[in-house]
Amino acid sequence: MRTVNLLVAIAAMAGIVTGQAQAWEALPDKAPEPADNPTTVAKVELGKMLYFDPRFSSTGSVSCFSCHNVMEGGDDHMPTSIGVHGQKGGRNAPTVWNAAFHSVQFWDGRAASLEDQAKGPPVNPIEMGMTSLGAVIDRVRAIPGYKPYFEAAFGPGEVVTMDNAAKAIAAYERTLITPGSAYDRFAKGETAALTAGQQRGMEALQAVGCTSCHQGPAFNGPALPIGTGFFMKFPTIAGSPYVTKYDLVADDGRFVSTSAEGDRHLWRVPTLRNLEFTAPYMHNGAVKTLPEAVRVMASTQLGQTLDDQQVDEMVAFLMSLSGPFPLQTMPRLPATPGDLLD
Amino acid sequence: MRTVNLLVAIAAMAGIVTGQAQAWEALPDKAPEPADNPTTVAKVELGKMLYFDPRFSSTGSVSCFSCHNVMEGGDDHMPTSIGVHGQKGGRNAPTVWNAAFHSVQFWDGRAASLEDQAKGPPVNPIEMGMTSLGAVIDRVRAIPGYKPYFEAAFGPGEVVTMDNAAKAIAAYERTLITPGSAYDRFAKGETAALTAGQQRGMEALQAVGCTSCHQGPAFNGPALPIGTGFFMKFPTIAGSPYVTKYDLVADDGRFVSTSAEGDRHLWRVPTLRNLEFTAPYMHNGAVKTLPEAVRVMASTQLGQTLDDQQVDEMVAFLMSLSGPFPLQTMPRLPATPGDLLD
Repeated sequence: MRTVNLLVAIAAMAGIVTGQAQAWEALPDKAPEPADNPTTVAKVELGKMLYFDPRFSSTGSVSCFSCHNVMEGGDDHMPTSIGVHGQKGGRNAPTVWNAAFHSVQFWDGRAASLEDQAKGPPVNPIEMGMTSLGAVIDRVRAIPGYKPYFEAAFGPGEVVTMDNAAKAIAAYERTLITPGSAYDRFAKGETAALTAGQQRGMEALQAVGCTSCHQGPAFNGPALPIGTGFFMKFPTIAGSPYVTKYDLVADDGRFVSTSAEGDRHLWRVPTLRNLEFTAPYMHNGAVKTLPEAVRVMASTQLGQTLDDQQVDEMVAFLMSLSGPFPLQTMPRLPATPGDLLD
Repeated sequence: MRTVNLLVAIAAMAGIVTGQAQAWEALPDKAPEPADNPTTVAKVELGKMLYFDPRFSSTGSVSCFSCHNVMEGGDDHMPTSIGVHGQKGGRNAPTVWNAAFHSVQFWDGRAASLEDQAKGPPVNPIEMGMTSLGAVIDRVRAIPGYKPYFEAAFGPGEVVTMDNAAKAIAAYERTLITPGSAYDRFAKGETAALTAGQQRGMEALQAVGCTSCHQGPAFNGPALPIGTGFFMKFPTIAGSPYVTKYDLVADDGRFVSTSAEGDRHLWRVPTLRNLEFTAPYMHNGAVKTLPEAVRVMASTQLGQTLDDQQVDEMVAFLMSLSGPFPLQTMPRLPATPGDLLD
């Protein structure tokens, strides 16, 4: 119940009311980082290696990258993801781009940090399918070439640990951010960065009420301490025709992980950045296009039916939240022992 | 039968005799390229995008990169590869590194060029599982962001074709070469590039007879026109105890694709470069370590039992054939329509 009360309290505190003036904020150039895991070049390098390495899945074929493709939208283009043995997961892969600006992770916010999140998929039987985190780090230890990278990141000694692996992956993910979009330039005063239509779309986003939840620089809610989630019920308006059309209540949301009745159909508010690259949409990936996603949200959350021009302009604005994506070099992965994947 | 006769003819022409003096050749800085597909920057860029894009497999989860990981050995660390729906293939993924120096492609040489090879896996039901090459290129066409890259590479007009996609992938693969290894520097006169033990290993490779087949700058046979394969029977010595131990005759090799009796257990001679990164070994991935692979080959091909020092020194030499791998930037893949993978 705590999360619901918190949500109400925050909404009151922040004065979130449809139509109220809001400051349009640019994304910071640096993601927040926890005191016990400052981002360093050595950690980012190691984290990138681990992120791309498929050898830490039971079959040796699935890595973080498999479902969170940083060469595109940070997801995998599918309604729900495919893990080991061709198994399909239950929810749409959330984008890793700007995940560092979420105060909790996963669709249902069940991980309090990027570090915690990184320990989930490896031992999910549908995703990477390892039997335990101990088995995961045993695989890392069995590849001798990793040790120097752990030592460079965490100092000498017994540093090849799951906690350090998760810290390195989180450090890498904190570099996966996209400040500098057309919207960000506009928010910093470059008024020509958005077209007139995009600016009308931006105003509509606020007038229609989307920014009640999708606010702040990542359009994912108010600034909250890491570990404190910003949740919303979805769908809110049970009578919306889209609820049946897209099967929006089949998944109980946060209730699945907390078993708290107040968490039924509660979801962490996702970012609106880079939606251009993350179709299909919603927690179940049931909505295929961005215009339709805008209509669905207006109807299910705000009880509104938008006209085509509103939709077009809101979509035009949402496209201004794309990229720019940092140019990345490919990691080099250390050689494998031939019996690693027996 | 043509290939066997050719093989004999070539061996005679080239004077391939165990123990005969051989020139140690460095890998060229540029791979050979066909007259109708000169390598250009625009083709390489497009080819890299296509190589990494999993959307051209039936499930949307398997790309060239999945089994030919250029962040490591150009293969996938497994005895045999995993394709769509978790299916396992029948042969070990050959490395893509220096594939441009093979005169034919695949373990059995059934593709005459990199361009031809690129059209195989997409429609292999176990690998990428598409129903036809037409279906593959339809997927490419359904992603509007690809068109400008095809036009940059191949000019204006109806250039989004499977032939052009294959040409672009081949052009990218021609950049995946590793001149400049310790061995290459030695071959160019830098005598300190190899240790004394490595030099003894190099001499042993010749004295034992490995270079009868594993000759030339890529250690994969004599220089032949693209499309003309250099094949060898494996195992040659049926009585070697390794034949049973590693199940080396279960796969009929080139016979499977030609049905020519003379092609039974014939295989294209693979490169010895970058073996450090490509365990496990052989066409079936049954041999886990490089020292064991050296023993197996000496026994099954040359009827020799090596002592430990010979093996150690030959392995030390083989390690001098590693890298250096070019630093690559990650491609950016164009946005996907939400219904692409229905």
